[in-house]
Amino acid sequence: MPKDRVFNFAAGPSTMPLEVLREAQSELLNYGETGMSVMEMSHRSKAFQAIHEDTKARLRALLKVPEDFEILFLQGGATLQFAMVPMNLIGRTGKADYAVTGSFAGKAADEAKKYGEVRIAASSKEKNHTYIPAQDQLDLHEDASYFYYCANNTIYGTEWQYTPQAPAGVPLVADMSSDILTRYIDWDKYAVVFAGAQKNMAPAGVTAVFVNKAYVGNALPISPVMLDYAAMIKGDSMHNTPPCWCIYMMDLMLKWIDAQGGIPAMEERKRARSKLLYDVLDSSSLFKGCAEKGSRSFMNVTFVTGDPEIDKRFIAGAKERGIENIGGHRSVGGMRASIYNSMPIEGVQALADYMKEFEKQG
Amino acid sequence: MPKDRVFNFAAGPSTMPLEVLREAQSELLNYGETGMSVMEMSHRSKAFQAIHEDTKARLRALLKVPEDFEILFLQGGATLQFAMVPMNLIGRTGKADYAVTGSFAGKAADEAKKYGEVRIAASSKEKNHTYIPAQDQLDLHEDASYFYYCANNTIYGTEWQYTPQAPAGVPLVADMSSDILTRYIDWDKYAVVFAGAQKNMAPAGVTAVFVNKAYVGNALPISPVMLDYAAMIKGDSMHNTPPCWCIYMMDLMLKWIDAQGGIPAMEERKRARSKLLYDVLDSSSLFKGCAEKGSRSFMNVTFVTGDPEIDKRFIAGAKERGIENIGGHRSVGGMRASIYNSMPIEGVQALADYMKEFEKQG
Repeated sequence: MPKDRVFNFAAGPSTMPLEVLREAQSELLNYGETGMSVMEMSHRSKAFQAIHEDTKARLRALLKVPEDFEILFLQGGATLQFAMVPMNLIGRTGKADYAVTGSFAGKAADEAKKYGEVRIAASSKEKNHTYIPAQDQLDLHEDASYFYYCANNTIYGTEWQYTPQAPAGVPLVADMSSDILTRYIDWDKYAVVFAGAQKNMAPAGVTAVFVNKAYVGNALPISPVMLDYAAMIKGDSMHNTPPCWCIYMMDLMLKWIDAQGGIPAMEERKRARSKLLYDVLDSSSLFKGCAEKGSRSFMNVTFVTGDPEIDKRFIAGAKERGIENIGGHRSVGGMRASIYNSMPIEGVQALADYMKEFEKQG
Repeated sequence: MPKDRVFNFAAGPSTMPLEVLREAQSELLNYGETGMSVMEMSHRSKAFQAIHEDTKARLRALLKVPEDFEILFLQGGATLQFAMVPMNLIGRTGKADYAVTGSFAGKAADEAKKYGEVRIAASSKEKNHTYIPAQDQLDLHEDASYFYYCANNTIYGTEWQYTPQAPAGVPLVADMSSDILTRYIDWDKYAVVFAGAQKNMAPAGVTAVFVNKAYVGNALPISPVMLDYAAMIKGDSMHNTPPCWCIYMMDLMLKWIDAQGGIPAMEERKRARSKLLYDVLDSSSLFKGCAEKGSRSFMNVTFVTGDPEIDKRFIAGAKERGIENIGGHRSVGGMRASIYNSMPIEGVQALADYMKEFEKQG
């Protein structure tokens, strides 16, 4: 880590590998032999088409995405998917089931209510979203167009440790913004998986959407063309100009993940990173983890001291050591260490060491 | 111009000033004293908030945007605005008037039909969109929620040389994607002005939207929250994570425009650039301009030889001289030189010289 760089634990946008940033920097004025920056390239040019194809191919290979899924790069973030999903999928039965395990899952359910009947399959709100419901706690219906859940809850630091099982014929839809590319996905169960890129994949401004073609073509008549998966598939994400730079950065990031050893390596690292911090929490009498043990997130480790003044002092001390952005989300307070694919183990070790030292010094 | 850079006449994404790209390159690993790239920054951080505020302030100052307009940075391009505009504005009377002067204006009208009654105020289709209708050719209605037009038609190379006048009480809505920041705007007449950034302002992935607050708050109930101007204003473009890098690049670009002398300088340059090419066309017996003289665009100069084989040879010869992307849009063929704010006069001079030379050599 160069002296002028910090360890950035932000929840998204978030840290990126130095190698990836250096590559972007080195070819910023002239990509390949094109004589121009990727930022200046026509999205219809051969050079950009090659970048786009490579990004799709790498995502497909890394995550073993079957051919019946299309990979789209869309704008508007996960929040626009909260509307796009029901606009395209809820028409089948007019109803859908939602698990509300956090703020963003709740927003997704609220958005879907504009387009059909939404039933809450489970809510962890009564325990401040500190746990993920078990399969037998899910109230699921055979007439649901789909069952929706958010795989990792960034704000609360919880993560589904299992893939839920919906009734026969009911596909899953999942927001995987904060844990995409950290494990394999059981594709056969899904209609749509989406992920805002700014945590594990790229800078903010592009959302990867994996769409099972079997569920496409039934968008509600009031859907804007940009919110119709069929139109986006037909245009290969280029119905209009896509966010080219963000797709290019995702390509660099996927190359880097490939070079590290792909999903198995990302999975091993996420376990190693999160273990460092949870081990400190489990042996601490000062810091308390927020999430229930069986529901702990590999990506966002949330904790408190119980005293907002001490939290504040801890966060300020961290900043002095180049450990940045470990304050909790403004809606919950405390601390949160977001440790996505790009966070080096050295950064997590530095935070774990500081936690122990802070506790010892009192 | 460094030897390894070309003159890039692409219609968007398009060329950017070398100084702007160099600045982005120099601070790509460590912005200011933050120890991180702009691509890694939390959108809630002080450093990014300062970039966001500066971008808005510069746009407001450059274009003299009055305080009753909010400036938003949204995703989805102009095409998503084609839906967002009627979703927010057509509810007032249920009807709107559209001038169809090209492909994108037509797409906007088609999209609006999903949300209300659309009346075609004028269409230039019978002459293949080679002209802009005069004020007295516009069929406008007092009960329209708004009158919509596309200020510059990128594909056909035409541009409105006047601000249309709608009946009393009917505001204008304009797509200014390809001529924003090249002239002042008569704000009092408008409800909404929008511009995809990838031509005159920034890389692809952000759309600047100027919203008159008097017309906000009446979004249709089926509007996704991301397509509700009121929600976007409430969140100051950060209802969810904005496309931070693109906003940052826009800020650099606006600083550059400021340094060049602002809108008066951009206006002078656009006249000088386009004159170079139109003068060649007007004295040529080989090349013919596509647009009628009174409707010619300052931004996209379209022309043909009348023989697709000669066009092809001309385009290939240009490429050999580092004059790139002068092929016309795939829907119309021929040639198109897109000469936005960032195109240096040297590039246009090189193209004009080549045109004359090509004609002389036969």
